[in-house]
Amino acid sequence: MSLLDETIASVAPADASLAAAAQRRLDVKTKPRGSLGRLEELACRIAAVRGTLDLPPLRAAIVVMAADHGVAREGVSAYPQEVTRQMLLNFAAGGAAINVLARRAGARVVVVDMGVAEPLPEHPAIRVARIGLGTRSLAHGPAMSRDQAVAALEVGIRIAHELAADGTTLLGLGEMGIGNTTSASALAAALTGCDPAQVTGRGTGVDDAGLARKAEVIRRALAVNHPDPDDPLGVLAALGGFEIAGLAGVALGGAASRVPVVVDGFIAAAAALVAVRLCPAARDALVAAHRSVEIGHARVLAAIGIEPLLDLRLRLGEGTGAALVVPIIDAALDVLRDMATFESAGVSDSGS
Amino acid sequence: MSLLDETIASVAPADASLAAAAQRRLDVKTKPRGSLGRLEELACRIAAVRGTLDLPPLRAAIVVMAADHGVAREGVSAYPQEVTRQMLLNFAAGGAAINVLARRAGARVVVVDMGVAEPLPEHPAIRVARIGLGTRSLAHGPAMSRDQAVAALEVGIRIAHELAADGTTLLGLGEMGIGNTTSASALAAALTGCDPAQVTGRGTGVDDAGLARKAEVIRRALAVNHPDPDDPLGVLAALGGFEIAGLAGVALGGAASRVPVVVDGFIAAAAALVAVRLCPAARDALVAAHRSVEIGHARVLAAIGIEPLLDLRLRLGEGTGAALVVPIIDAALDVLRDMATFESAGVSDSGS
Repeated sequence: MSLLDETIASVAPADASLAAAAQRRLDVKTKPRGSLGRLEELACRIAAVRGTLDLPPLRAAIVVMAADHGVAREGVSAYPQEVTRQMLLNFAAGGAAINVLARRAGARVVVVDMGVAEPLPEHPAIRVARIGLGTRSLAHGPAMSRDQAVAALEVGIRIAHELAADGTTLLGLGEMGIGNTTSASALAAALTGCDPAQVTGRGTGVDDAGLARKAEVIRRALAVNHPDPDDPLGVLAALGGFEIAGLAGVALGGAASRVPVVVDGFIAAAAALVAVRLCPAARDALVAAHRSVEIGHARVLAAIGIEPLLDLRLRLGEGTGAALVVPIIDAALDVLRDMATFESAGVSDSGS
Repeated sequence: MSLLDETIASVAPADASLAAAAQRRLDVKTKPRGSLGRLEELACRIAAVRGTLDLPPLRAAIVVMAADHGVAREGVSAYPQEVTRQMLLNFAAGGAAINVLARRAGARVVVVDMGVAEPLPEHPAIRVARIGLGTRSLAHGPAMSRDQAVAALEVGIRIAHELAADGTTLLGLGEMGIGNTTSASALAAALTGCDPAQVTGRGTGVDDAGLARKAEVIRRALAVNHPDPDDPLGVLAALGGFEIAGLAGVALGGAASRVPVVVDGFIAAAAALVAVRLCPAARDALVAAHRSVEIGHARVLAAIGIEPLLDLRLRLGEGTGAALVVPIIDAALDVLRDMATFESAGVSDSGS
């Protein structure tokens, strides 16, 4: 049995009895019942995924995977392809938005080269797990082979397992790859059955002509590859990117390790959708950080069945939204762990 | 000239040239322009209020003011009046939600007794600034005198000035007072011209009968006091609570000291609305933390003209929502301060 199949088989749904136990504990804290809204839901969800009420402050890691996309040559992005590689070096140097926001959140950033077009010099802050020199253009045939898709998924699974074994208690999904909103839009259209226009947005900021070109490229990709939504691995191979496949693996590995996985923007959400199509039980481990400006994001989150925590009009990716919600999830766990009870504080309860 | 009048006269609008300078600085950071959405707006706003681009990590303080309300005797709350005093002691002991969330945010909690019904033992963590033994019931006449309203406002102004002088760079508004959603709803109806039903919710969780009673009490309060929206001080005296008046003062003092003020839930928003009616220029200093479940909250924020950052279905008050956004505001400033530029990181720009 392959690592992928083993991992999928080992994902258990979250433990509802622990969610209920967490809610009972919250209900005796000094506040009207339910008055912390989604913070209470989060605390219950994390308890159910982790399988315990013993929840110390988070040790979070944002896994930022980067790869290049053959489709970038079709003029679908506002930025040239070399920016993927340049940004990978920026992540390694600590100067990108994700570095800054992860520091604020107390989260590690794990940077992975899943296959940028031009190999990078060795760097202690970049893990090399290159599946190839970037994907082929999905507009002319499958972006990668099924074997490559499995290999990329398994890279993500291994990284998630390793981080979990190392004490990580929360994973975040981040990505970089010029052209990857095109891949994510194609995946979203294929897996949800939406028309491409409903899930194709401006990405890093293409103009109207670029947007039209992008939608046309996606239509062509769907026509050429005729992806079968009942074969998510085939859909991923046809339309995905190496970083998207890797992140789907991180989501599966996190779920299998009972580590909650925070989904970031549109591309990370597309990866998460691939993961739940491969393994529906993985959904319980997913937390949606935010709803971005990218038009398809809300639809993909709805298809997964998770509700975003923030709506701050972000459209950057990299895991930036995931980093922003880490302190909110930590706050939810602090409430569960540290607040006084009506009894301990000598506060009268409403009795309801 | 009174401290109140002096403070109102000294509030200057935020400096738009600094907001523009902050945006220019953000526009050369390694990310598509505007892609951090509301984080970018926040960074620009904070720069404009503080009057500088030199913005180190925040030193935040949440001012939690507590007082009792005569109207609590009309059966408008799910909790008995003594809970105000009990919760004040819980704040002082560090066991309440605001203590837990403020610790996570790295914020101080400044607890102020503005007038609970029964005086408390001296406690180093409670500032005593009692205006009276709780207000009178607004259903039978003015809740307080104009002199008391001015005194409470000036308590808040002094605390804000003192915290600003002590190096605080962000203030949050928090409150506790059984019955105070009734006062806030009455203020909201009087100042916005809404029907009481549009701004009266369940507070800590009254049932349908309690909700009907509450709306009826507010109608009676408006009929008895016939508040004049062009006389915000008179409206505050007629319908306010000591903690609400005090928080309006904190908002004014913060604005006068160029310290941004984070508005929390419905009651804090009612206080902020009083502040901007007394001094429209104070609005620029206000940041809306969240939209709560309480029905009138969104309407009051809209009347002030500020857009909430979070929607987490909170309905607790105490400044909990304000504490939750401190790390988000800090993250915005981190981006402005710490991110690499296209030039410094050697990343190609899109040129748009």
